[in-house]
Amino acid sequence: MLESYLQDTWATPAATDDAADVRDAVTGETVCRVSSAGLDLAGAFDHARRVGGPALGEATFHQRADLLDALAAAVRARREELYALSARAGATPVDARYDVDGGIRVLRDYATRARTELPDAPHLIEGPAERLARGDDFLGVHLCTPSPGLMLQVNAFNFPVWAPLEKLAQAVLAGLPSVVKPATPTAYLTEHLVRIITDAGALPPGALQLVVGSVRPALDLLGEQDVLSFTGSAATAETLRTHPHLVSRSVRFNSEADSVNAIVLAPDVRPGSPLFAAFVREVVTEMTVKAGQKCTAIRRVLVPREHEAAALDAISAELAGVVIGNPAAEGVRMGAVVSLAQRDDVRRAARRIAESGRFVHGDPDKVRVVDADPEQGAFLDTLLISVDPDASAPHEVEPFGPAASVLAYRDTAHAADLIARGRGSLAASLVSDDLTWTTAFVRRAAPWHGRLHLLDATNMDQTTGHGSPLPALRHGGPGRAGGGSEMGGVRGVLDLMQRTALQASRRLLESLGENSKAA
Amino acid sequence: MLESYLQDTWATPAATDDAADVRDAVTGETVCRVSSAGLDLAGAFDHARRVGGPALGEATFHQRADLLDALAAAVRARREELYALSARAGATPVDARYDVDGGIRVLRDYATRARTELPDAPHLIEGPAERLARGDDFLGVHLCTPSPGLMLQVNAFNFPVWAPLEKLAQAVLAGLPSVVKPATPTAYLTEHLVRIITDAGALPPGALQLVVGSVRPALDLLGEQDVLSFTGSAATAETLRTHPHLVSRSVRFNSEADSVNAIVLAPDVRPGSPLFAAFVREVVTEMTVKAGQKCTAIRRVLVPREHEAAALDAISAELAGVVIGNPAAEGVRMGAVVSLAQRDDVRRAARRIAESGRFVHGDPDKVRVVDADPEQGAFLDTLLISVDPDASAPHEVEPFGPAASVLAYRDTAHAADLIARGRGSLAASLVSDDLTWTTAFVRRAAPWHGRLHLLDATNMDQTTGHGSPLPALRHGGPGRAGGGSEMGGVRGVLDLMQRTALQASRRLLESLGENSKAA
Repeated sequence: MLESYLQDTWATPAATDDAADVRDAVTGETVCRVSSAGLDLAGAFDHARRVGGPALGEATFHQRADLLDALAAAVRARREELYALSARAGATPVDARYDVDGGIRVLRDYATRARTELPDAPHLIEGPAERLARGDDFLGVHLCTPSPGLMLQVNAFNFPVWAPLEKLAQAVLAGLPSVVKPATPTAYLTEHLVRIITDAGALPPGALQLVVGSVRPALDLLGEQDVLSFTGSAATAETLRTHPHLVSRSVRFNSEADSVNAIVLAPDVRPGSPLFAAFVREVVTEMTVKAGQKCTAIRRVLVPREHEAAALDAISAELAGVVIGNPAAEGVRMGAVVSLAQRDDVRRAARRIAESGRFVHGDPDKVRVVDADPEQGAFLDTLLISVDPDASAPHEVEPFGPAASVLAYRDTAHAADLIARGRGSLAASLVSDDLTWTTAFVRRAAPWHGRLHLLDATNMDQTTGHGSPLPALRHGGPGRAGGGSEMGGVRGVLDLMQRTALQASRRLLESLGENSKAA
Repeated sequence: MLESYLQDTWATPAATDDAADVRDAVTGETVCRVSSAGLDLAGAFDHARRVGGPALGEATFHQRADLLDALAAAVRARREELYALSARAGATPVDARYDVDGGIRVLRDYATRARTELPDAPHLIEGPAERLARGDDFLGVHLCTPSPGLMLQVNAFNFPVWAPLEKLAQAVLAGLPSVVKPATPTAYLTEHLVRIITDAGALPPGALQLVVGSVRPALDLLGEQDVLSFTGSAATAETLRTHPHLVSRSVRFNSEADSVNAIVLAPDVRPGSPLFAAFVREVVTEMTVKAGQKCTAIRRVLVPREHEAAALDAISAELAGVVIGNPAAEGVRMGAVVSLAQRDDVRRAARRIAESGRFVHGDPDKVRVVDADPEQGAFLDTLLISVDPDASAPHEVEPFGPAASVLAYRDTAHAADLIARGRGSLAASLVSDDLTWTTAFVRRAAPWHGRLHLLDATNMDQTTGHGSPLPALRHGGPGRAGGGSEMGGVRGVLDLMQRTALQASRRLLESLGENSKAA
């Protein structure tokens, strides 16, 4: 039975019949059981607000940055343990590093940013001061202060290390204590992460707590100064967004929902060219890294009609070389999805999408695997589906696994209409060397996307990839993608603080501290 | 029957039995009737998106600024008509100028800001570009583009001119067409405003439409690229926030709800001092301007226990000199509230608050008025209520009229606890010459407030007043105040646009336009 970390101690839930079994994605063995029965969540929230909040809120941004560095060092020192455990969730070594090292990188990036862009003070005065009337003593600035609340993280299963660390980086800098609720299928990874952090004493008491199992009854304990930071399905986001208590108390809500992200191959990119090859690499990487279980992964591949056949051929050929199987085995490039239930969901979604077309590569019901039992493990073949671009399912149904559909567009206007049919996405890639085409397309596509990844011949070898959110850039998209926002540099920190307009005399602004101004 | 302005023409609703009567606040005569029966709202939304959106979105920020100047000039040229009409809603000439001239000022302020702080381009690139990888061709910036949607304004009755203009200023600059739905009791003022604007041809076709009457059936027509900008009661905000269609389509929602705003007299301010007099003025102004019908108005007056009697005396003495009556009559300082229903609401709320105390000035049931019939008109006496500071009602119940409660606090910690019991407010004033006290109190109070107005001996003669939101400053508060944000300079414009992270080569960023960078 997995423990929770509450009020600075490890706590075991009460014995209960309805604990959830978590199984190894590769072997089907039970890894652990998960329940929050009998845990004192009210006590945990209270502890966060009474103990963790003041400890973080009274520290300066630079002191909080030091905490992030300590956190990063603690995780780095024991990251091999997390890699090893990741394999049980179906992750290859590459997948595990994406999750673990990616999380460490966000901590370090934010520590550096805070020292460079934020003052050595607990709050930030955003200036310059504006004169609001005649005379010099009625000035306006904005003051960003820590909220006396907590952040409740409700996370998805796919990034059990990166997601809590990424949110923690911003929350710590904002002076907010965190309560982390991991998704059940990979809760043991987040639990181990929290153990590493608490073993190292990297954070002050009350700054980080962990609730394994359901946190639903505790939603009624959130208030105006708290933030609910959600990552997961659009359906759950909807339930949370309309939760009567959360609405009546105006609990701040941030949502990163799944979306049906696209890549667009522009008409100017000829099959056989290096940029075409980069496009194919991008698609295959997105389909196979973490077995396609990324909220940013490419689901729709838009190609000009005249290059459809070439694109299908090239992507299929590359997919054919992807070795699938036990992620710990030599040579395996793609592991399992997280659970058999997840596998069945992906199969259903892929079949639904294929109703308007056909499977060009892969079979939803069969897969050849290396060093594993294809029935016990949650394995899936890579699934490339050629579809009618004007059908609904490819734009609406998200197979959260190694599947993508290929849609042939007639002309650029058609492509722009198609990309908007995702109704808001986290990320899209545009692949083109035609500056005029890209510039025009960006203007059409931008309002529907949180991030646009523009690949051309000059940067195709430098890219960090379509699927990678970066600390410098906003992560979160409009519409179906949840309308949320994380990272984007210091903005992600300030969004978690209260920004208050201040009308004050010059001497008062001086008293609030010269050192509170942005560096 | 009041007309609506749809698809660039004035439209009369279908004859219907359930049209609402709007009565003169002073005489009780019928001013007009209001209904949206039979109006083609779907056509209006479509027109906004197809005609108004492209016209605004393709214009540059500077061209949009020119539109705001034209708008301001048109309204200014005929503002006397709006002043005259305002009297029917109970507004004195001072109240009318607050509403009308305030709106003109926001337009002008935003026009100037846009020319100074935004580029002469349709979109904004927020830099500087950050290198995202080794090499110089994979750079990160953020791009703010106009959303291909519309803004639906759902406004409160109290600022029939300022509110639509303030929202319009930001929407026009953001490239969003507007559909304005005024509150029924003052719809005729907004209708006249729109007539002035359209007579002058100040905006391109489709950029501004007006729906008089209910807009509820049209909420199902909003989508991901639209913004619903609401000002009004917390209860209505809750209904809108959980509206199934709005949630399922992730319609952007901004809310300014009523809040129970406070002013705090610090222990250092001695009765009889000039700063004490400024404090009293501030309270009385907030109670009487627009007969207290401002979402920012002071409802809770926190005073140190030792100065409670002096504060009650001084405020009461000042209130005793306020002449109430026909707002058009000479010497009248406070007119009527907007309707008899509103008068009854305020009476109920004031009595509820007085349960833990007593009326120190004014009688909820009686009022002496000049040049009007106190029964036909919606007149109220100014109501000052001394209450138990630890009771609930003074912190929760908002009398949206000329009423305020006085709460005596024991010490600074008590005052800080009390102010937070409003659960989030638009604005609070702190009155003190003690820099140490104010600095410490600001840190406690800031997370609960959208704006803090800090009054001291150096700026008390320069202040624009507790109740005035200014274009330079964020308007909107956490928690009960709705959690929304408007104005705050250019931020209010960019919040209405889609901010997209862009990963691109140097040459592509150049192609997107040097002139898209912030000035």
